[in-house]
Amino acid sequence: MKYIESESNASIKQWKKLHTKKEREKTGTFLLEGPHLIEEAIASGAALVHVIVEENFEMKDEWLKEKFTLWTVPAKIMKILSETEKPQGIIAVCEMPAEPEEILKENGRYLFVDGVQDPGNLGTIIRTADSAGLDGVFLGEGTADLFNGKTVRSTQGSIFHLPIVKKDLQKALSDCQSLNIPVYSTSLSDAVDMREVPETKGFALIVGNEGSGVQPALQNESTMNVKIPIFGKAESLNVSVATGILLYELQRKR
Amino acid sequence: MKYIESESNASIKQWKKLHTKKEREKTGTFLLEGPHLIEEAIASGAALVHVIVEENFEMKDEWLKEKFTLWTVPAKIMKILSETEKPQGIIAVCEMPAEPEEILKENGRYLFVDGVQDPGNLGTIIRTADSAGLDGVFLGEGTADLFNGKTVRSTQGSIFHLPIVKKDLQKALSDCQSLNIPVYSTSLSDAVDMREVPETKGFALIVGNEGSGVQPALQNESTMNVKIPIFGKAESLNVSVATGILLYELQRKR
Repeated sequence: MKYIESESNASIKQWKKLHTKKEREKTGTFLLEGPHLIEEAIASGAALVHVIVEENFEMKDEWLKEKFTLWTVPAKIMKILSETEKPQGIIAVCEMPAEPEEILKENGRYLFVDGVQDPGNLGTIIRTADSAGLDGVFLGEGTADLFNGKTVRSTQGSIFHLPIVKKDLQKALSDCQSLNIPVYSTSLSDAVDMREVPETKGFALIVGNEGSGVQPALQNESTMNVKIPIFGKAESLNVSVATGILLYELQRKR
Repeated sequence: MKYIESESNASIKQWKKLHTKKEREKTGTFLLEGPHLIEEAIASGAALVHVIVEENFEMKDEWLKEKFTLWTVPAKIMKILSETEKPQGIIAVCEMPAEPEEILKENGRYLFVDGVQDPGNLGTIIRTADSAGLDGVFLGEGTADLFNGKTVRSTQGSIFHLPIVKKDLQKALSDCQSLNIPVYSTSLSDAVDMREVPETKGFALIVGNEGSGVQPALQNESTMNVKIPIFGKAESLNVSVATGILLYELQRKR
Protein backbone atom coordinates (compact mmCIF):
# COMPACT_ATOMS: atom_id res chain seq x y z
CA MET A 1 0.00 0.00 0.00
CA LYS A 2 1.38 3.34 -1.04
CA TYR A 3 0.54 6.66 0.56
CA ILE A 4 0.10 9.97 -1.24
CA GLU A 5 -0.25 13.11 0.79
CA SER A 6 0.40 15.94 -1.64
CA GLU A 7 -2.20 17.39 -3.97
CA SER A 8 0.56 18.14 -6.46
CA ASN A 9 1.60 14.49 -6.73
CA ALA A 10 1.90 13.56 -10.40
CA SER A 11 -0.36 10.48 -10.13
CA ILE A 12 -3.15 12.50 -8.54
CA LYS A 13 -2.89 15.06 -11.32
CA GLN A 14 -2.95 12.29 -13.92
CA TRP A 15 -5.98 10.51 -12.42
CA LYS A 16 -7.90 13.74 -12.10
CA LYS A 17 -7.45 14.24 -15.84
CA LEU A 18 -9.67 11.18 -16.31
CA HIS A 19 -12.61 13.48 -15.59
CA THR A 20 -12.20 14.49 -19.26
CA LYS A 21 -13.25 12.36 -22.21
CA LYS A 22 -10.05 13.26 -24.05
CA GLU A 23 -7.82 11.74 -21.38
CA ARG A 24 -10.04 8.67 -20.99
CA GLU A 25 -9.77 7.97 -24.70
CA LYS A 26 -6.04 8.66 -24.77
CA THR A 27 -5.34 6.21 -21.94
CA GLY A 28 -8.14 3.70 -22.48
CA THR A 29 -9.02 3.97 -18.79
CA PHE A 30 -11.83 5.53 -16.75
CA LEU A 31 -12.75 6.17 -13.11
CA LEU A 32 -15.07 4.10 -10.94
CA GLU A 33 -16.42 5.58 -7.71
CA GLY A 34 -17.80 3.82 -4.69
CA PRO A 35 -17.67 0.29 -3.32
CA HIS A 36 -20.71 -0.98 -5.26
CA LEU A 37 -19.24 -0.21 -8.68
CA ILE A 38 -15.86 -1.62 -7.69
CA GLU A 39 -17.54 -4.80 -6.49
CA GLU A 40 -19.35 -5.10 -9.83
CA ALA A 41 -16.14 -4.45 -11.78
CA ILE A 42 -14.27 -7.17 -9.93
CA ALA A 43 -17.17 -9.63 -10.22
CA SER A 44 -17.23 -9.11 -13.99
CA GLY A 45 -13.48 -9.53 -14.41
CA ALA A 46 -12.82 -5.91 -15.41
CA ALA A 47 -9.17 -4.88 -15.09
CA LEU A 48 -8.57 -2.40 -12.27
CA VAL A 49 -5.20 -0.70 -12.58
CA HIS A 50 -5.19 1.51 -9.48
CA VAL A 51 -7.44 1.55 -6.44
CA ILE A 52 -7.31 4.70 -4.34
CA VAL A 53 -8.84 4.65 -0.86
CA GLU A 54 -9.25 7.18 1.87
CA GLU A 55 -7.51 6.53 5.16
CA ASN A 56 -9.60 4.15 7.28
CA PHE A 57 -11.55 2.78 4.32
CA GLU A 58 -12.08 -0.93 4.89
CA MET A 59 -11.09 -2.98 1.87
CA LYS A 60 -12.81 -6.35 1.44
CA ASP A 61 -10.41 -9.27 1.67
CA GLU A 62 -11.48 -10.67 -1.71
CA TRP A 63 -10.67 -7.38 -3.40
CA LEU A 64 -7.08 -7.56 -2.18
CA LYS A 65 -6.57 -10.71 -4.27
CA GLU A 66 -6.85 -8.60 -7.42
CA LYS A 67 -3.84 -7.28 -9.30
CA PHE A 68 -4.23 -3.49 -8.92
CA THR A 69 -1.90 -1.12 -7.09
CA LEU A 70 -3.44 0.15 -3.87
CA TRP A 71 -2.98 3.76 -2.77
CA THR A 72 -4.10 5.56 0.37
CA VAL A 73 -4.89 9.25 0.37
CA PRO A 74 -6.24 11.81 2.86
CA ALA A 75 -9.85 13.05 2.52
CA LYS A 76 -8.80 16.29 0.80
CA ILE A 77 -7.24 14.34 -2.06
CA MET A 78 -10.23 12.01 -2.36
CA LYS A 79 -12.32 15.15 -2.84
CA ILE A 80 -10.09 16.23 -5.72
CA LEU A 81 -10.43 12.89 -7.48
CA SER A 82 -14.14 12.46 -6.81
CA GLU A 83 -16.87 13.78 -9.11
CA THR A 84 -19.58 13.46 -6.46
CA GLU A 85 -20.61 15.69 -3.58
CA LYS A 86 -20.14 12.94 -1.03
CA PRO A 87 -17.16 10.77 -1.95
CA GLN A 88 -17.55 7.18 -0.74
CA GLY A 89 -13.92 6.59 0.18
CA ILE A 90 -12.85 4.53 -2.83
CA ILE A 91 -12.06 5.28 -6.47
CA ALA A 92 -10.48 3.02 -9.08
CA VAL A 93 -8.80 3.53 -12.42
CA CYS A 94 -10.26 0.81 -14.64
CA GLU A 95 -9.35 -0.32 -18.15
CA MET A 96 -12.10 0.09 -20.71
CA PRO A 97 -13.43 -3.36 -21.61
CA ALA A 98 -12.61 -4.48 -25.16
CA GLU A 99 -15.60 -4.08 -27.45
CA PRO A 100 -16.89 -7.49 -28.52
CA GLU A 101 -16.53 -8.22 -32.24
CA GLU A 102 -20.07 -9.22 -33.05
CA ILE A 103 -23.02 -9.40 -30.71
CA LEU A 104 -25.91 -9.76 -33.14
CA LYS A 105 -27.57 -13.15 -33.31
CA GLU A 106 -30.90 -14.51 -34.48
CA ASN A 107 -33.75 -13.74 -32.12
CA GLY A 108 -31.47 -11.45 -30.09
CA ARG A 109 -32.80 -8.37 -28.32
CA TYR A 110 -31.01 -5.04 -28.61
CA LEU A 111 -31.28 -1.39 -27.79
CA PHE A 112 -29.99 1.35 -30.10
CA VAL A 113 -29.28 4.69 -28.42
CA ASP A 114 -29.44 7.52 -30.95
CA GLY A 115 -28.04 10.75 -29.55
CA VAL A 116 -29.15 10.62 -25.91
CA GLN A 117 -27.16 13.54 -24.50
CA ASP A 118 -27.57 13.43 -20.76
CA PRO A 119 -25.06 11.06 -19.13
CA GLY A 120 -27.55 10.32 -16.33
CA ASN A 121 -30.15 9.29 -18.88
CA LEU A 122 -27.64 7.12 -20.76
CA GLY A 123 -26.57 5.33 -17.59
CA THR A 124 -30.17 4.76 -16.50
CA ILE A 125 -31.03 3.44 -19.98
CA ILE A 126 -28.18 0.91 -19.80
CA ARG A 127 -29.34 -0.18 -16.34
CA THR A 128 -32.84 -0.62 -17.76
CA ALA A 129 -31.59 -2.60 -20.78
CA ASP A 130 -29.78 -4.89 -18.34
CA SER A 131 -32.91 -5.35 -16.21
CA ALA A 132 -34.90 -6.24 -19.30
CA GLY A 133 -32.32 -8.91 -20.13
CA LEU A 134 -31.19 -7.52 -23.47
CA ASP A 135 -28.33 -9.05 -25.44
CA GLY A 136 -26.58 -5.76 -26.13
CA VAL A 137 -26.71 -2.00 -26.52
CA PHE A 138 -25.46 0.02 -29.52
CA LEU A 139 -24.47 3.64 -28.99
CA GLY A 140 -24.80 5.87 -32.04
CA GLU A 141 -23.03 9.11 -32.82
CA GLY A 142 -23.93 12.12 -30.68
CA THR A 143 -24.69 9.94 -27.65
CA ALA A 144 -23.18 10.89 -24.26
CA ASP A 145 -19.86 9.28 -23.38
CA LEU A 146 -20.23 5.81 -21.88
CA PHE A 147 -17.27 6.38 -19.59
CA ASN A 148 -18.36 9.78 -18.25
CA GLY A 149 -18.46 9.45 -14.44
CA LYS A 150 -22.16 10.28 -14.26
CA THR A 151 -23.00 7.70 -16.94
CA VAL A 152 -21.00 5.02 -15.16
CA ARG A 153 -22.56 5.77 -11.77
CA SER A 154 -26.07 5.83 -13.23
CA THR A 155 -25.60 2.35 -14.71
CA GLN A 156 -25.24 1.12 -11.10
CA GLY A 157 -22.87 -1.57 -12.41
CA SER A 158 -24.85 -2.59 -15.49
CA ILE A 159 -21.98 -1.23 -17.61
CA PHE A 160 -20.25 -4.52 -16.70
CA HIS A 161 -23.27 -6.76 -17.32
CA LEU A 162 -23.97 -6.62 -21.03
CA PRO A 163 -22.12 -5.81 -24.27
CA ILE A 164 -22.21 -2.08 -25.11
CA VAL A 165 -20.81 -1.13 -28.50
CA LYS A 166 -20.30 2.17 -30.32
CA LYS A 167 -21.58 1.65 -33.82
CA ASP A 168 -23.05 3.39 -36.83
CA LEU A 169 -26.74 2.80 -36.18
CA GLN A 170 -27.68 2.74 -39.86
CA LYS A 171 -25.27 -0.18 -40.25
CA ALA A 172 -26.54 -1.89 -37.09
CA LEU A 173 -30.10 -1.47 -38.36
CA SER A 174 -29.42 -3.17 -41.68
CA ASP A 175 -27.43 -5.90 -39.90
CA CYS A 176 -30.51 -6.60 -37.74
CA GLN A 177 -32.78 -6.71 -40.74
CA SER A 178 -30.47 -9.22 -42.49
CA LEU A 179 -31.01 -11.44 -39.45
CA ASN A 180 -34.79 -10.93 -39.60
CA ILE A 181 -34.73 -9.00 -36.35
CA PRO A 182 -37.48 -6.34 -36.51
CA VAL A 183 -36.31 -2.82 -35.66
CA TYR A 184 -38.68 -0.47 -33.84
CA SER A 185 -38.09 3.27 -33.68
CA THR A 186 -39.77 5.23 -30.95
CA SER A 187 -41.81 8.09 -32.31
CA LEU A 188 -44.37 10.52 -30.95
CA SER A 189 -46.54 10.61 -34.06
CA ASP A 190 -47.39 8.45 -37.04
CA ALA A 191 -46.54 5.34 -35.07
CA VAL A 192 -48.17 2.09 -33.94
CA ASP A 193 -49.37 1.89 -30.33
CA MET A 194 -46.84 -0.34 -28.56
CA ARG A 195 -49.65 -2.68 -27.49
CA GLU A 196 -50.39 -3.44 -31.16
CA VAL A 197 -46.86 -4.56 -32.05
CA PRO A 198 -47.05 -8.19 -33.21
CA GLU A 199 -45.41 -11.04 -31.30
CA THR A 200 -41.70 -11.29 -31.88
CA LYS A 201 -38.83 -13.17 -30.30
CA GLY A 202 -36.00 -10.85 -31.22
CA PHE A 203 -36.15 -7.09 -31.66
CA ALA A 204 -34.09 -3.94 -31.75
CA LEU A 205 -35.58 -0.83 -30.16
CA ILE A 206 -34.24 2.62 -31.10
CA VAL A 207 -34.56 5.43 -28.55
CA GLY A 208 -33.47 8.96 -29.38
CA ASN A 209 -32.33 12.37 -28.30
CA GLU A 210 -34.13 14.08 -25.39
CA GLY A 211 -35.29 16.96 -27.54
CA SER A 212 -35.53 15.73 -31.09
CA GLY A 213 -36.11 11.98 -30.71
CA VAL A 214 -34.87 9.34 -33.15
CA GLN A 215 -33.42 10.82 -36.36
CA PRO A 216 -35.75 10.54 -39.37
CA ALA A 217 -33.21 8.54 -41.41
CA LEU A 218 -33.43 5.72 -38.85
CA GLN A 219 -37.21 6.00 -38.46
CA ASN A 220 -37.61 5.66 -42.22
CA GLU A 221 -35.56 2.47 -42.37
CA SER A 222 -37.16 0.88 -39.31
CA THR A 223 -39.54 -2.05 -39.55
CA MET A 224 -42.12 -0.05 -37.63
CA ASN A 225 -42.38 3.15 -35.62
CA VAL A 226 -43.88 2.61 -32.17
CA LYS A 227 -45.27 4.92 -29.53
CA ILE A 228 -46.36 4.76 -25.92
CA PRO A 229 -49.98 5.81 -25.45
CA ILE A 230 -50.36 9.01 -23.40
CA PHE A 231 -53.47 8.88 -21.20
CA GLY A 232 -53.04 12.30 -19.58
CA LYS A 233 -51.88 15.73 -20.66
CA ALA A 234 -48.11 15.21 -20.86
CA GLU A 235 -46.62 15.63 -24.32
CA SER A 236 -44.03 12.92 -23.92
CA LEU A 237 -42.11 10.81 -21.42
CA ASN A 238 -38.53 11.06 -20.22
CA VAL A 239 -36.35 8.93 -22.53
CA SER A 240 -35.20 6.56 -19.74
CA VAL A 241 -38.77 6.00 -18.58
CA ALA A 242 -39.94 5.46 -22.18
CA THR A 243 -37.15 2.91 -22.69
CA GLY A 244 -38.30 0.98 -19.62
CA ILE A 245 -41.96 0.94 -20.62
CA LEU A 246 -41.17 -0.15 -24.20
CA LEU A 247 -38.63 -2.82 -23.29
CA TYR A 248 -40.99 -4.42 -20.79
CA GLU A 249 -43.82 -4.22 -23.31
CA LEU A 250 -41.69 -5.92 -25.98
CA GLN A 251 -40.65 -8.52 -23.43
CA ARG A 252 -44.29 -9.53 -23.36
CA LYS A 253 -44.40 -10.23 -27.08
CA ARG A 254 -42.00 -13.16 -26.87
CA MET B 1 -42.65 46.95 -18.92
CA LYS B 2 -40.14 47.85 -16.23
CA TYR B 3 -36.40 47.68 -16.62
CA ILE B 4 -33.92 46.54 -13.95
CA GLU B 5 -30.24 46.99 -14.59
CA SER B 6 -28.60 46.62 -11.21
CA GLU B 7 -27.72 43.31 -9.58
CA SER B 8 -28.32 44.90 -6.21
CA ASN B 9 -31.93 45.77 -7.01
CA ALA B 10 -34.16 44.64 -4.14
CA SER B 11 -36.56 42.67 -6.36
CA ILE B 12 -33.72 40.71 -7.93
CA LYS B 13 -32.40 39.86 -4.48
CA GLN B 14 -35.87 38.82 -3.38
CA TRP B 15 -36.56 36.61 -6.41
CA LYS B 16 -33.17 34.94 -6.13
CA LYS B 17 -34.12 33.90 -2.61
CA LEU B 18 -36.79 31.70 -4.19
CA HIS B 19 -33.99 29.24 -4.96
CA THR B 20 -34.46 28.20 -1.32
CA LYS B 21 -37.32 26.10 0.00
CA LYS B 22 -37.62 28.35 3.05
CA GLU B 23 -38.36 31.44 0.99
CA ARG B 24 -40.73 29.56 -1.32
CA GLU B 25 -42.76 28.40 1.66
CA LYS B 26 -42.69 31.80 3.34
CA THR B 27 -44.01 33.56 0.23
CA GLY B 28 -46.14 30.80 -1.30
CA THR B 29 -44.43 31.39 -4.63
CA PHE B 30 -41.86 29.58 -6.78
CA LEU B 31 -39.84 30.15 -9.95
CA LEU B 32 -40.62 28.85 -13.42
CA GLU B 33 -37.91 28.85 -16.07
CA GLY B 34 -38.24 28.76 -19.82
CA PRO B 35 -41.04 29.42 -22.32
CA HIS B 36 -42.45 25.88 -22.23
CA LEU B 37 -43.19 25.91 -18.50
CA ILE B 38 -44.62 29.41 -18.67
CA GLU B 39 -46.89 28.36 -21.52
CA GLU B 40 -48.10 25.40 -19.44
CA ALA B 41 -48.66 27.59 -16.40
CA ILE B 42 -50.78 30.06 -18.34
CA ALA B 43 -52.74 27.30 -20.09
CA SER B 44 -53.60 25.77 -16.71
CA GLY B 45 -54.67 29.06 -15.16
CA ALA B 46 -51.78 29.27 -12.68
CA ALA B 47 -51.24 32.75 -11.25
CA LEU B 48 -48.03 34.37 -12.48
CA VAL B 49 -47.05 37.35 -10.36
CA HIS B 50 -43.92 38.56 -12.13
CA VAL B 51 -42.47 37.65 -15.50
CA ILE B 52 -38.83 38.55 -16.03
CA VAL B 53 -37.41 38.49 -19.54
CA GLU B 54 -34.03 39.15 -21.04
CA GLU B 55 -33.70 42.05 -23.47
CA ASN B 56 -34.84 40.96 -26.95
CA PHE B 57 -36.90 38.00 -25.66
CA GLU B 58 -40.04 37.77 -27.75
CA MET B 59 -43.14 37.51 -25.60
CA LYS B 60 -46.16 35.81 -27.17
CA ASP B 61 -49.12 38.14 -27.63
CA GLU B 62 -51.46 35.83 -25.68
CA TRP B 63 -49.14 35.92 -22.68
CA LEU B 64 -49.41 39.71 -22.50
CA LYS B 65 -53.14 39.39 -21.76
CA GLU B 66 -52.26 37.88 -18.36
CA LYS B 67 -52.15 39.91 -15.18
CA PHE B 68 -48.47 39.69 -14.19
CA THR B 69 -45.96 42.53 -13.99
CA LEU B 70 -43.41 42.33 -16.79
CA TRP B 71 -39.75 43.15 -16.17
CA THR B 72 -36.80 43.35 -18.55
CA VAL B 73 -33.28 42.58 -17.39
CA PRO B 74 -29.85 42.27 -19.01
CA ALA B 75 -28.29 38.81 -19.55
CA LYS B 76 -26.08 39.09 -16.46
CA ILE B 77 -29.14 39.42 -14.21
CA MET B 78 -30.95 36.57 -15.94
CA LYS B 79 -27.92 34.44 -15.08
CA ILE B 80 -28.28 35.35 -11.40
CA LEU B 81 -31.95 34.39 -11.31
CA SER B 82 -31.56 31.23 -13.37
CA GLU B 83 -30.80 27.82 -11.90
CA THR B 84 -29.74 26.34 -15.23
CA GLU B 85 -26.51 26.52 -17.20
CA LYS B 86 -28.20 27.94 -20.26
CA PRO B 87 -30.97 30.36 -19.26
CA GLN B 88 -33.78 30.48 -21.81
CA GLY B 89 -34.51 34.20 -21.52
CA ILE B 90 -37.64 34.04 -19.36
CA ILE B 91 -38.37 33.35 -15.69
CA ALA B 92 -41.62 33.81 -13.78
CA VAL B 93 -42.58 34.08 -10.14
CA CYS B 94 -45.67 31.88 -9.82
CA GLU B 95 -48.11 31.36 -6.95
CA MET B 96 -48.25 27.83 -5.60
CA PRO B 97 -51.56 26.28 -6.66
CA ALA B 98 -54.01 25.68 -3.80
CA GLU B 99 -54.03 22.02 -2.75
CA PRO B 100 -57.38 20.45 -3.64
CA GLU B 101 -59.46 19.36 -0.65
CA GLU B 102 -60.14 15.77 -1.60
CA ILE B 103 -59.04 13.98 -4.70
CA LEU B 104 -59.84 10.37 -3.83
CA LYS B 105 -62.77 8.79 -5.59
CA GLU B 106 -64.00 5.28 -6.34
CA ASN B 107 -62.00 3.54 -9.06
CA GLY B 108 -59.50 6.40 -9.07
CA ARG B 109 -55.84 5.84 -9.86
CA TYR B 110 -53.13 7.36 -7.68
CA LEU B 111 -49.43 7.41 -7.05
CA PHE B 112 -47.90 7.68 -3.57
CA VAL B 113 -44.33 8.96 -3.45
CA ASP B 114 -42.61 7.81 -0.26
CA GLY B 115 -39.32 9.63 0.31
CA VAL B 116 -37.98 10.00 -3.24
CA GLN B 117 -35.08 12.37 -2.59
CA ASP B 118 -33.77 13.44 -5.96
CA PRO B 119 -35.72 16.40 -7.37
CA GLY B 120 -35.05 15.19 -10.92
CA ASN B 121 -36.55 11.81 -10.08
CA LEU B 122 -39.58 13.41 -8.42
CA GLY B 123 -40.24 15.65 -11.42
CA THR B 124 -39.85 12.75 -13.85
CA ILE B 125 -42.19 10.63 -11.72
CA ILE B 126 -44.88 13.35 -11.83
CA ARG B 127 -44.47 13.63 -15.61
CA THR B 128 -44.88 9.85 -15.84
CA ALA B 129 -47.98 9.84 -13.59
CA ASP B 130 -49.48 12.48 -15.89
CA SER B 131 -48.68 10.42 -19.01
CA ALA B 132 -50.32 7.39 -17.43
CA GLY B 133 -53.46 9.46 -16.84
CA LEU B 134 -53.55 9.21 -13.05
CA ASP B 135 -56.07 11.11 -10.93
CA GLY B 136 -53.53 12.42 -8.46
CA VAL B 137 -50.18 12.13 -6.72
CA PHE B 138 -49.58 12.10 -2.94
CA LEU B 139 -46.20 13.20 -1.64
CA GLY B 140 -45.18 11.68 1.69
CA GLU B 141 -42.72 13.01 4.23
CA GLY B 142 -39.05 12.97 3.25
CA THR B 143 -39.88 13.47 -0.42
CA ALA B 144 -38.01 16.15 -2.39
CA ASP B 145 -39.64 19.58 -2.57
CA LEU B 146 -42.25 19.82 -5.32
CA PHE B 147 -41.33 23.47 -5.97
CA ASN B 148 -37.57 22.94 -6.20
CA GLY B 149 -36.46 24.32 -9.58
CA LYS B 150 -35.11 20.98 -10.73
CA THR B 151 -38.34 19.18 -9.77
CA VAL B 152 -40.45 21.74 -11.60
CA ARG B 153 -38.31 21.59 -14.74
CA SER B 154 -38.28 17.77 -14.74
CA THR B 155 -42.09 17.68 -14.67
CA GLN B 156 -41.98 19.43 -18.09
CA GLY B 157 -45.25 21.13 -17.16
CA SER B 158 -47.04 18.11 -15.65
CA ILE B 159 -46.95 19.93 -12.30
CA PHE B 160 -49.90 21.90 -13.73
CA HIS B 161 -51.77 18.90 -15.15
CA LEU B 162 -52.88 16.81 -12.19
CA PRO B 163 -53.54 17.26 -8.47
CA ILE B 164 -50.40 16.83 -6.33
CA VAL B 165 -50.93 16.78 -2.59
CA LYS B 166 -48.62 16.54 0.41
CA LYS B 167 -50.17 14.01 2.74
CA ASP B 168 -49.45 11.47 5.44
CA LEU B 169 -49.23 8.31 3.34
CA GLN B 170 -50.49 6.03 6.10
CA LYS B 171 -53.66 8.12 6.16
CA ALA B 172 -53.92 8.20 2.36
CA LEU B 173 -53.49 4.42 2.31
CA SER B 174 -56.35 3.78 4.71
CA ASP B 175 -58.51 6.31 2.86
CA CYS B 176 -57.93 4.32 -0.34
CA GLN B 177 -58.79 1.08 1.34
CA SER B 178 -62.06 2.54 2.68
CA LEU B 179 -62.94 3.22 -0.96
CA ASN B 180 -61.96 -0.33 -1.98
CA ILE B 181 -59.03 0.96 -3.97
CA PRO B 182 -56.26 -1.65 -3.78
CA VAL B 183 -52.87 -0.27 -2.72
CA TYR B 184 -49.70 -1.77 -4.22
CA SER B 185 -46.29 -1.19 -2.69
CA THR B 186 -43.24 -1.69 -4.86
CA SER B 187 -40.83 -4.13 -3.33
CA LEU B 188 -37.72 -5.98 -4.47
CA SER B 189 -38.43 -9.20 -2.58
CA ASP B 190 -41.39 -11.11 -1.19
CA ALA B 191 -43.67 -9.56 -3.77
CA VAL B 192 -46.02 -10.58 -6.55
CA ASP B 193 -44.74 -10.28 -10.14
CA MET B 194 -46.52 -7.24 -11.60
CA ARG B 195 -47.88 -9.40 -14.43
CA GLU B 196 -49.80 -11.49 -11.86
CA VAL B 197 -51.66 -8.58 -10.26
CA PRO B 198 -55.40 -9.18 -10.75
CA GLU B 199 -57.57 -6.91 -12.90
CA THR B 200 -58.56 -3.72 -11.17
CA LYS B 201 -60.12 -0.43 -12.19
CA GLY B 202 -58.72 1.80 -9.50
CA PHE B 203 -55.39 1.47 -7.73
CA ALA B 204 -52.81 3.30 -5.69
CA LEU B 205 -49.15 2.52 -6.37
CA ILE B 206 -46.51 3.36 -3.77
CA VAL B 207 -42.95 4.03 -4.94
CA GLY B 208 -40.14 4.69 -2.49
CA ASN B 209 -36.78 6.14 -1.67
CA GLU B 210 -33.92 5.60 -4.15
CA GLY B 211 -31.85 3.65 -1.63
CA SER B 212 -34.23 2.08 0.84
CA GLY B 213 -37.46 1.72 -1.15
CA VAL B 214 -40.95 1.93 0.37
CA GLN B 215 -40.95 2.02 4.16
CA PRO B 216 -41.95 -1.29 5.80
CA ALA B 217 -44.91 0.29 7.66
CA LEU B 218 -46.54 1.09 4.31
CA GLN B 219 -45.61 -2.24 2.74
CA ASN B 220 -47.23 -4.07 5.65
CA GLU B 221 -50.51 -2.21 5.29
CA SER B 222 -50.64 -2.50 1.51
CA THR B 223 -53.09 -4.76 -0.29
CA MET B 224 -50.19 -6.40 -2.09
CA ASN B 225 -46.48 -5.89 -2.65
CA VAL B 226 -45.53 -5.95 -6.32
CA LYS B 227 -42.26 -6.23 -8.19
CA ILE B 228 -40.94 -5.84 -11.69
CA PRO B 229 -39.29 -9.02 -12.98
CA ILE B 230 -35.56 -8.59 -13.64
CA PHE B 231 -34.43 -10.63 -16.66
CA GLY B 232 -30.76 -9.60 -16.58
CA LYS B 233 -28.14 -8.98 -13.89
CA ALA B 234 -29.24 -5.57 -12.57
CA GLU B 235 -30.30 -5.51 -8.94
CA SER B 236 -33.04 -2.96 -9.41
CA LEU B 237 -34.35 -0.21 -11.64
CA ASN B 238 -34.19 3.55 -11.28
CA VAL B 239 -37.30 4.68 -9.36
CA SER B 240 -38.64 6.84 -12.23
CA VAL B 241 -38.24 4.00 -14.71
CA ALA B 242 -39.86 1.54 -12.29
CA THR B 243 -42.79 3.93 -11.83
CA GLY B 244 -43.30 4.07 -15.59
CA ILE B 245 -43.18 0.31 -16.09
CA LEU B 246 -45.58 -0.34 -13.18
CA LEU B 247 -48.09 2.38 -14.07
CA TYR B 248 -48.31 1.19 -17.67
CA GLU B 249 -48.64 -2.40 -16.46
CA LEU B 250 -51.47 -1.46 -14.08
CA GLN B 251 -53.09 0.52 -16.89
CA ARG B 252 -53.51 -2.80 -18.70
CA LYS B 253 -55.48 -4.33 -15.83
CA ARG B 254 -58.41 -2.00 -16.28
